[in-house]
Amino acid sequence: MKFVSFKTNNQNSYGILSENENSIWNLSSINDRIYSGKLLPKTLLEGIEEGEQFLENVRTCLNDLPDQNEEHVLAISEIEFLAPIPKPRKNIMCVGKNYREHAIEMGSEADIPEHIMIFTKAPTSVIGHQDQINSHETLTNQLDYEGELAIIMGRNGYQIDEQDALDYIFGYTILNDVTARDLQKKHKQFFIGKSLDTFCPIGPYIVTKEMVSNPQQLNIETKVNGEVRQSSDTSQMIFSIPTIISTLSQGMTLEAGDIIATGTPAGVGKGFNPPRFLKSGDEIEIVVEQVGILKNLVR
Amino acid sequence: MKFVSFKTNNQNSYGILSENENSIWNLSSINDRIYSGKLLPKTLLEGIEEGEQFLENVRTCLNDLPDQNEEHVLAISEIEFLAPIPKPRKNIMCVGKNYREHAIEMGSEADIPEHIMIFTKAPTSVIGHQDQINSHETLTNQLDYEGELAIIMGRNGYQIDEQDALDYIFGYTILNDVTARDLQKKHKQFFIGKSLDTFCPIGPYIVTKEMVSNPQQLNIETKVNGEVRQSSDTSQMIFSIPTIISTLSQGMTLEAGDIIATGTPAGVGKGFNPPRFLKSGDEIEIVVEQVGILKNLVR
Repeated sequence: MKFVSFKTNNQNSYGILSENENSIWNLSSINDRIYSGKLLPKTLLEGIEEGEQFLENVRTCLNDLPDQNEEHVLAISEIEFLAPIPKPRKNIMCVGKNYREHAIEMGSEADIPEHIMIFTKAPTSVIGHQDQINSHETLTNQLDYEGELAIIMGRNGYQIDEQDALDYIFGYTILNDVTARDLQKKHKQFFIGKSLDTFCPIGPYIVTKEMVSNPQQLNIETKVNGEVRQSSDTSQMIFSIPTIISTLSQGMTLEAGDIIATGTPAGVGKGFNPPRFLKSGDEIEIVVEQVGILKNLVR
Repeated sequence: MKFVSFKTNNQNSYGILSENENSIWNLSSINDRIYSGKLLPKTLLEGIEEGEQFLENVRTCLNDLPDQNEEHVLAISEIEFLAPIPKPRKNIMCVGKNYREHAIEMGSEADIPEHIMIFTKAPTSVIGHQDQINSHETLTNQLDYEGELAIIMGRNGYQIDEQDALDYIFGYTILNDVTARDLQKKHKQFFIGKSLDTFCPIGPYIVTKEMVSNPQQLNIETKVNGEVRQSSDTSQMIFSIPTIISTLSQGMTLEAGDIIATGTPAGVGKGFNPPRFLKSGDEIEIVVEQVGILKNLVR
């Protein structure tokens, strides 16, 4: 299933994208049916926190309802995308320098990490598919993109073994780790340069894990104004998704709804000589095989 | 006022500490009185998010009730402290190396930052006064303490001017930025080494801002098993509280309930030669003038 959070008639809602991606089952509008003793949750995040039961209830619900029941179906043109989790309950965790060639373009071979490096982005930086990225022109003149595959945790876990790690995932989405390179450098720890408002586009939806054949074998591409800038494959990650989940959870409890961005391949603006930073009017499109296309415009 | 979150009869509650600090007005037990058209909020965090109105309602409520109304008063012995905000809505933001002598003890004069450095701690690391710090012996043998004054934001703000910054504060508390120095170093970005479960004791309460004469002139002291290890004054911060708030909010919206730790003075375990790291059984006591005493035992 592809879970979307969206706004329609000024109301935050969530639902399931149809197969042809033209319409959405609006689960928020189904508030008179009881599944496993309760109503469907009010937000996608609450659903994710309910775990497997939520997925089962949604499946039952979709089977229950007559196909194309107009009352609960919206055309894609009627909605405005929100990030799948518009207000995460903690910062987004991001793996730094997780693709060899990207680590090198950021400096030299010496930048290839021996151990996982994690920084975070503030929840206030999250925006959705087709939302605009604020260029923050008074603060930075090195605005950069980073296309990434992100995972959404589906269960709480502590000291998760690598071989069990994928079971803890709810699904996959795309994340643009927008960065002010000058602030990233100036403030040493990455948080400030990564957390400006609108610096974390996520979406367009969460693809549940059973729909992704192998998360470690997905083509990933970032285009700026149609020109391919990043083109790689998730097989090129230095630290695999199971390693990331296992390492993070060794001393820290991971929770359902946690968002972890798995790093960006080579081809960011800073990696070019001379650098090719973003400017107002640029359109960034990140395509991850089986996961979707995330598009945002810089304003 | 001194706001406490606590557990009593297995229920999470919050209230106001009495002047002699022997008892607590249990605001969670007052659920039949309407103030400004509504009940008191269910958690302290929700109260903080309500802003000034919440403080006014609490004041009215305390005046309303007969002194020592047994129904709503608990002896301090009847409660178990929770962190004032047991489940923050985002990571705790921490200023790194904000005291000159501490920056030097972590390396050399070259470590004195020219610009504010911010890292974050996961909300899952938060514990309360008198809770035990897990030594995570299998992960680290360089467990360290960092006594800090923390601020709790009371209003949302963007591009806050330094001269207005203190108005955005709800109050002050104490935070122990517990750190696994080996993990901090190994993973480069500080997040992992700072975010292990139990690594963020906060409390014992939030002192509202009007009770603190000058947050930039408070004695701060950390004792380990009664021995003074850190002793300084908040006047020694490199970046003052208004500068921290103003800098952070230049591109990132700060929100009511945000927790910002303002940095630690010299005297951490790593700063000694040889280093004096924490071990199971150690008691850490952080005293901040006008703000309280935060005590935790390492298990």
